[in-house]
Amino acid sequence: MTKFDEATQAIRVDDTTYDVCLDDAYSIGGPLNGGYLLATVLRAVVDSSPHAHPVSTSAQFLRAPAPGPARVEVETLKAGRTAAMSRARLVRDGVPYIETLVTTATLDAEAEPFWSDTPSAPMPASDGCVRLPDPKPESNMNFNAQVELLFDPPTIGWLSGEPTGRPESRAYFRMAEPQDPDPYVLALAVDALPPVVFSAGGRGWAPTVELTWHLRALPAPGWLTLIGGGRLVSDGWFDEEVEVWDAAGRLVAQSRQLARVGRG
Amino acid sequence: MTKFDEATQAIRVDDTTYDVCLDDAYSIGGPLNGGYLLATVLRAVVDSSPHAHPVSTSAQFLRAPAPGPARVEVETLKAGRTAAMSRARLVRDGVPYIETLVTTATLDAEAEPFWSDTPSAPMPASDGCVRLPDPKPESNMNFNAQVELLFDPPTIGWLSGEPTGRPESRAYFRMAEPQDPDPYVLALAVDALPPVVFSAGGRGWAPTVELTWHLRALPAPGWLTLIGGGRLVSDGWFDEEVEVWDAAGRLVAQSRQLARVGRG
Repeated sequence: MTKFDEATQAIRVDDTTYDVCLDDAYSIGGPLNGGYLLATVLRAVVDSSPHAHPVSTSAQFLRAPAPGPARVEVETLKAGRTAAMSRARLVRDGVPYIETLVTTATLDAEAEPFWSDTPSAPMPASDGCVRLPDPKPESNMNFNAQVELLFDPPTIGWLSGEPTGRPESRAYFRMAEPQDPDPYVLALAVDALPPVVFSAGGRGWAPTVELTWHLRALPAPGWLTLIGGGRLVSDGWFDEEVEVWDAAGRLVAQSRQLARVGRG
Repeated sequence: MTKFDEATQAIRVDDTTYDVCLDDAYSIGGPLNGGYLLATVLRAVVDSSPHAHPVSTSAQFLRAPAPGPARVEVETLKAGRTAAMSRARLVRDGVPYIETLVTTATLDAEAEPFWSDTPSAPMPASDGCVRLPDPKPESNMNFNAQVELLFDPPTIGWLSGEPTGRPESRAYFRMAEPQDPDPYVLALAVDALPPVVFSAGGRGWAPTVELTWHLRALPAPGWLTLIGGGRLVSDGWFDEEVEVWDAAGRLVAQSRQLARVGRG
């Protein structure tokens, strides 16, 4: 069991309740990474489902939970032959932190696409990509040590005062501790990039309000490619879309989040 | 009050319960149009919120309700100064039909975009566009009479056996009864196109499993432009993205749904 598998464990208490322990290793400067929290919720939902895979997850981020023990409460809404639907809530002391709708199904690992588009933006070879500088220890950016991200250089130009002028962020991704990607790693991956709005000139803490992601195929072993973009920054809101492609060239996940532009 | 406003009315029973009456005029061959159902749920949620606009809506389509009386049950999860978050459920006789997460906020009608992309595909002038043939009366496609859609011709080539070979659907849209677009009309608009998978060679009833849409700006009066596409058709699932642009050239809504490919 990897550290990630352990940190996302959901231990069944009864038919509708799971105990989890939120791990400070996924802190992004205080709050915990949203994808990490979703992976934890999804462990509980999939355990309670007759199906094997979380094909669709929508989440509202109500409050940012501190590390420590918490619970996932699951309500099954429909258990169909093709798909099951649940709602699940991350709670602590009766206070909801994340509210989700999850559809589970069992994907066919051998399925060949009937039709597939190509990645929405090109990526340079990985040896032309760059890592972020190590965060300052006092920043509490523990998340950065859990993953490896190799960035398409222009999309982190904002770090040195040269944003590209449009919302975008692209990187190769894998877990720092060797682990083949699975749906829970993908939940982490869709929220692992710095906010795309940084490349458009935005700054500061950009809280996610809503994030929906769909698992489109089971990922092959190896690096993942994350292609992040956005369509509109307006009235304090921005959208961020992330496509995840696996090492076999398959679209394995797609997400969109609506978030607030930071005041930083 | 237009017929659409009336058909989506939600009458407050108490703090958490609204009466609605689902109108057969929005039937798409038996089931009711999903966007119509969402508009009805959103009336209840916005009425119960301190904010004016439904900025983010995620919905799971559990079962297809028949026309007639139903209820919307709303639970407020957080009422913040910038945004409020609720879950809401369309129920009849205790059975849930649609489960939603809705974030409300108050958008600034005068906001100028900080950054905006352009439409993801070009549209011909409206006089180069075409209408769908009238549905057969026995088809119960009553929805078609409620809206005007002028299609980019290749994207309905599937009707005459000439699909373009990729998931796409594009049209100009307005309500058949004169009405300026508002957020509820946009809820209808994001689910008003024929399934994009028809252009990729799919056929038959394509049930929506999950649909998330974001209201990005308040629409100007006039025609809307709907740009629909998709990224992957695989393992019986497809995604459909719809962008809605208003007559002033603004991106006003963006949606993605995950749906099943029909067996037709």
